[in-house]
Amino acid sequence: MARNTTVPADLSAPPITSILAKFVSGHASRGWSDAVDHEAHRTFYNWLGCAVGAAKHEAADAAIAAVQMLQPAPQATVLGRAEKVDMASAALVNGITSHTFDFDDTHLKTIIHPAGPVASAVLALAEKNGMGGREVIDAVVLGIDVACRIGNTMYPDHYDRGWHITGSTGMLGAAAGCARLLRLDEQKTQMALGIAASQPVGLREQFGTMTKPFHPGGAARAGLMSALLASRGFTASPRAIEAPRGFVQVASDKRAWNEVTDELGQRFEISFNTYKPFACGIVIHPSIDACVQLKDKGVTPEQVERIELRVHSLVLELTGKKEPKDGLQGKFSVYHGCAAGLIYGRAGEEEFSDHVVNDPRVVETRNKVVATVDDSIDEASVHVAALLKDGRRIEVHVEHAIGSLQNPLSDKQLEGKFNQLVVPVLGDAKAREITAACWELGAMADVRKLTALCRP
Amino acid sequence: MARNTTVPADLSAPPITSILAKFVSGHASRGWSDAVDHEAHRTFYNWLGCAVGAAKHEAADAAIAAVQMLQPAPQATVLGRAEKVDMASAALVNGITSHTFDFDDTHLKTIIHPAGPVASAVLALAEKNGMGGREVIDAVVLGIDVACRIGNTMYPDHYDRGWHITGSTGMLGAAAGCARLLRLDEQKTQMALGIAASQPVGLREQFGTMTKPFHPGGAARAGLMSALLASRGFTASPRAIEAPRGFVQVASDKRAWNEVTDELGQRFEISFNTYKPFACGIVIHPSIDACVQLKDKGVTPEQVERIELRVHSLVLELTGKKEPKDGLQGKFSVYHGCAAGLIYGRAGEEEFSDHVVNDPRVVETRNKVVATVDDSIDEASVHVAALLKDGRRIEVHVEHAIGSLQNPLSDKQLEGKFNQLVVPVLGDAKAREITAACWELGAMADVRKLTALCRP
Repeated sequence: MARNTTVPADLSAPPITSILAKFVSGHASRGWSDAVDHEAHRTFYNWLGCAVGAAKHEAADAAIAAVQMLQPAPQATVLGRAEKVDMASAALVNGITSHTFDFDDTHLKTIIHPAGPVASAVLALAEKNGMGGREVIDAVVLGIDVACRIGNTMYPDHYDRGWHITGSTGMLGAAAGCARLLRLDEQKTQMALGIAASQPVGLREQFGTMTKPFHPGGAARAGLMSALLASRGFTASPRAIEAPRGFVQVASDKRAWNEVTDELGQRFEISFNTYKPFACGIVIHPSIDACVQLKDKGVTPEQVERIELRVHSLVLELTGKKEPKDGLQGKFSVYHGCAAGLIYGRAGEEEFSDHVVNDPRVVETRNKVVATVDDSIDEASVHVAALLKDGRRIEVHVEHAIGSLQNPLSDKQLEGKFNQLVVPVLGDAKAREITAACWELGAMADVRKLTALCRP
Repeated sequence: MARNTTVPADLSAPPITSILAKFVSGHASRGWSDAVDHEAHRTFYNWLGCAVGAAKHEAADAAIAAVQMLQPAPQATVLGRAEKVDMASAALVNGITSHTFDFDDTHLKTIIHPAGPVASAVLALAEKNGMGGREVIDAVVLGIDVACRIGNTMYPDHYDRGWHITGSTGMLGAAAGCARLLRLDEQKTQMALGIAASQPVGLREQFGTMTKPFHPGGAARAGLMSALLASRGFTASPRAIEAPRGFVQVASDKRAWNEVTDELGQRFEISFNTYKPFACGIVIHPSIDACVQLKDKGVTPEQVERIELRVHSLVLELTGKKEPKDGLQGKFSVYHGCAAGLIYGRAGEEEFSDHVVNDPRVVETRNKVVATVDDSIDEASVHVAALLKDGRRIEVHVEHAIGSLQNPLSDKQLEGKFNQLVVPVLGDAKAREITAACWELGAMADVRKLTALCRP
């Protein structure tokens, strides 16, 4: 077998597709700890908020307009909008909106945003079939485990060579979740995974365009269709993931098969999922966190003479823009992030809008921020000192920013983020009802109760 | 930029996505020779016959059953069947059926089967919109040019590492063809190509399963949707094909950009398309061709004492099965191929059915075939001698088998192949009408006249 890559074909890979099919089809419902089950609820809730939040974005408008050209049957909800479309198109669009603000979940070990492909496919299929919340949560846990374990197998080589790993593992996670929902047996689940293996979606070159969020959407759609095809007898290679010309070996020189098999069914990758508190790159998060803490200590922008940051050099390399002109540039300005944190106590999508970035009070505040490089400080940390006009000096040290694995958002904080996203689209009352429904999702008899709340 | 492959990122690639967008959106209708235009008609006609021929295959049944779960609107025809489905699903299913028998066209330089992704997408979209045959032919020529030129850029490395190149270039060809049909401007065509670049479909590991023909179908669907998305303002990287983290560099170490740019708009890759006369791997074709010629010389199986083949060693390596037990095994038996050629004068899908492979007259005939390896004979050639019971010896030497680029099927022979495939599904009269319609496709005012004929 001719191969021009550095790494030869691995002819002795374990039967990964088969192992995962057995796991997905056979693992007990809620066969994990309460902590894992709760994390699944948090993952789902955060994903739903992100999707609803971006429902009116121009990427959503364009995607829905294209889908409408297929005259789709009204099977499933486009979250946050009045339209219903066929379930495969709903998986696509909800996957797109959930990643549009770059505000969704992150499996830090692989930089996969796992809920986008998996939850988007699973909820659309469950809504169409009127299934229960327990089955949805089970499918989300198992689907995310499949996507992230395949990610662990290939990361970083697969990502380094240019694949957007969220969409190029997500089709397997979505297929797994949907196969589980459809109660496919082991053999058909293996076929679903096999069909999906031929359909990775995503190139890093697309970052900064609508095709970036298209990747989780496309992966959701591909995984859902793979499960439907398998359910009707469509076949694929039983070794489509691991064979020498199967997905992993074709798309990565790193093939750490043990990442699939180690503690399978005991350790769940969803345990390592994190949720962004701020709608920007993670490198600014410690600084924003510190400034929110200053506000919480009663510091107002008008009291402040100067804010001094000590940060790792990477922070200024990536986000050192002193005079951002619009919302997008604001996401690359640690100065703007600090101003938003101090003034508003938050930095959601709204705080990265053009008008906030150009608000005179915001501009005045960010001009008071001075950043110094100090590489003894970790990338994930910051030291902030506020010098007040009355001579006081108030210091905040952030070791692990809010939203990191070491310092996760509390459920209450997650609700705060959700409301920032959802209230402007669906209003207060619905946001409250959806929140209550999501925390109880595992006990919901029919998820259509939830999806009905997600339409205006 | 970290890369673990042998070949570093190419930071100076020409603007391939832009160049192709300009070409696809701007090239004149029928801006090529009559020979190219006629080849496009042959390509389309051959593709249509293959798709109709496999319309009742279990892969088609399974795919349609899955698609029906989306309750699709009846926008476009599933060729050879009564069902109409949404145009994206029609592109998928027709792409699947066109490749199910492995009997479709081949661009020999890349082993791409180009019509599957391109024509399947283009016809479904044209039918939905009631467009003319001229636009369809234009879109097929341009779409195939895009797919095959990208294939030339990456082949063989891309194929060697395990990509099924038909589906991993076909999404670009389908997007190009559909962008042309939709009359997208240069900028939107560039976006369509960009969106498609994130969606390659196909692994060689799937060979021998239904997911192999899924690849052209999936590519057709992806390309069609990419054009629809671009038409509604969805964005992608303008350098999605050629950038360091764009499709070609991510999926291949060979990046011969000149294969896109050389003689673009003057030389058309569809000129190099070929059509299989026999429903099996190309390595047996010379032997079958020779035995058909024996039959044409009046030789009957009963007259024959022995048939002696001199073949390249590859022929027996790949197709040396002496006692095939079923139709699929028959495709890997040069002995069976020779028997079919001598008895029936053809070797279509029917001659590779289980009952033909086990027919006593066929078994008796293939037992008379003796093959000898002679590596002075080219892989594409064969020397056959029939020793008759009356002592005569009749020899046939085939230098280039029928269906090769050097010895293409005539239009009449293509009609013979088409009828083998289509008559059993749609009957004689419709096969004749479709044939007439296809040869005049470039002049047809509305392709719905053709698609109506393709339903039973």
